[in-house]
Amino acid sequence: MMKTVKIKKYSGELQDFDMNKLINSLRRSQADENLVQHVARNIVDQVEEGMTTKKIYQMAFNMLKSRSRISASKYNLKKSLMELGSTGFPFEKLVGKLMEFEGFNTQVGVIVQGDCVSHEIDVIAEKENNHYMIECKYHNSQGRFCNVKTPLYVQSRFVDVKQRWKSQVGHDTKLHRGGLYTNTRFTTDAIQYGTCVDLMLVSWDYPPQNSLKARIDKAGLYPLTALATLTKTEKRQLLDKGIVLCKEVYENPILLEQLGINESRQRKILDDSLKLCSAINTLI
Amino acid sequence: MMKTVKIKKYSGELQDFDMNKLINSLRRSQADENLVQHVARNIVDQVEEGMTTKKIYQMAFNMLKSRSRISASKYNLKKSLMELGSTGFPFEKLVGKLMEFEGFNTQVGVIVQGDCVSHEIDVIAEKENNHYMIECKYHNSQGRFCNVKTPLYVQSRFVDVKQRWKSQVGHDTKLHRGGLYTNTRFTTDAIQYGTCVDLMLVSWDYPPQNSLKARIDKAGLYPLTALATLTKTEKRQLLDKGIVLCKEVYENPILLEQLGINESRQRKILDDSLKLCSAINTLI
Repeated sequence: MMKTVKIKKYSGELQDFDMNKLINSLRRSQADENLVQHVARNIVDQVEEGMTTKKIYQMAFNMLKSRSRISASKYNLKKSLMELGSTGFPFEKLVGKLMEFEGFNTQVGVIVQGDCVSHEIDVIAEKENNHYMIECKYHNSQGRFCNVKTPLYVQSRFVDVKQRWKSQVGHDTKLHRGGLYTNTRFTTDAIQYGTCVDLMLVSWDYPPQNSLKARIDKAGLYPLTALATLTKTEKRQLLDKGIVLCKEVYENPILLEQLGINESRQRKILDDSLKLCSAINTLI
Repeated sequence: MMKTVKIKKYSGELQDFDMNKLINSLRRSQADENLVQHVARNIVDQVEEGMTTKKIYQMAFNMLKSRSRISASKYNLKKSLMELGSTGFPFEKLVGKLMEFEGFNTQVGVIVQGDCVSHEIDVIAEKENNHYMIECKYHNSQGRFCNVKTPLYVQSRFVDVKQRWKSQVGHDTKLHRGGLYTNTRFTTDAIQYGTCVDLMLVSWDYPPQNSLKARIDKAGLYPLTALATLTKTEKRQLLDKGIVLCKEVYENPILLEQLGINESRQRKILDDSLKLCSAINTLI
């Protein structure tokens, strides 16, 4: 029989524990349905009045991890993004790689002269006649939303840069567009404003069919912080070298050698990296 | 003989103690020149290697206060603004009053529908054909500057609101302008951008001839936190009632009665309030 218990959200608010919500969240791990149902039943048995969603999430992650490290990594994507560090740079790099996957030529962290002042643009992306200026808003804790002030300020930067772009040779026929990526969420008025002025907005779960999580799944561009076999210190050491993606680890196995990781762990890590990079193939 | 000692700035940086700078800062107290010179000589005798500017400022304030509470209050204006509290509301009110002094009709904290979203505008000010939308950026600690992101976001808000204003009856011939007031300072690129897009920018010391401090001196619109005779608790109680200015205290002596302040202190406070309110008359 279903228990009806109240659990505590990140915000401190209480809400009824919802089995369907749990199952949906588990499905994003792309684990097979048997494992999803198995974990969900186990959680239902253990969930108690007043338990935090964080605790429930942690239990689910551990159960998944014991059966499938890759599913656990996928389930853990949101948290892996929060582990990219206190600066926004790895996130900008990830966004650049996602746009490359979509066929754009990109530059990350470029100083660009606008009409009034110069700006550091996180990602400039070009494909045929499309010329995008992307701002990345990175938060390393849950519940920090991206409010309307960010698209407002991004729009002014974009307008300032666009004036200058338009005056360049061959630019008058290009489609210029500003954009804003965040690893958390937009407030309602941030989406309302951004949509109204035609900024491209991407957040953890927006737009629903082409959100950040959907794009990462599709491209298989998981951050290396998703690798359950790496220690925190090893992740930090790789990030400090400017390495951000599982893919980069897989393509440069020498990196693991340099960290002094033994051969059997190296194999495990490379194996997981490959499975995460090639996520798209398993979906097709 | 002049000592050459290094003193420590708010930023932690060391710099040579500069007698002329001290004298200039003392002159903004509008104390008579004898008192200015007297305090300056006293400070020179007491200043020591590595002393902080904060300590030196405090000594100067105490010396002024013992001779002239009003001069001390004027000298202390910047700090009085920092004492307005953790929310920006008293500062918005002060800015509204300053614009009224300049002949505008003002509204403070108004929700306005823009073309894309609605905005809470700190101060709307109108005079003849001029229709201003002012954002107030309040900081309650030293060294927090207003960087370029603020005028960038203010400009987008202004553009969004202006679209709507322009469509209103009789508005097509009006001059619409955005503005930004801060009690601290703008970074160089904030001034460069704001000037380029024609925002009206006012900070503690910008524009030089018509800065926030100059406007407050001219209007005599000192915040009640400048009153050296009120305790911290009394200031907080008045601010909590929505009272912000010395002028309001002077015009409503019942407020002091309500706080349970005895008659002799009431007289002292009202006397100081009057002298601070009428600053302009003593200057003309």
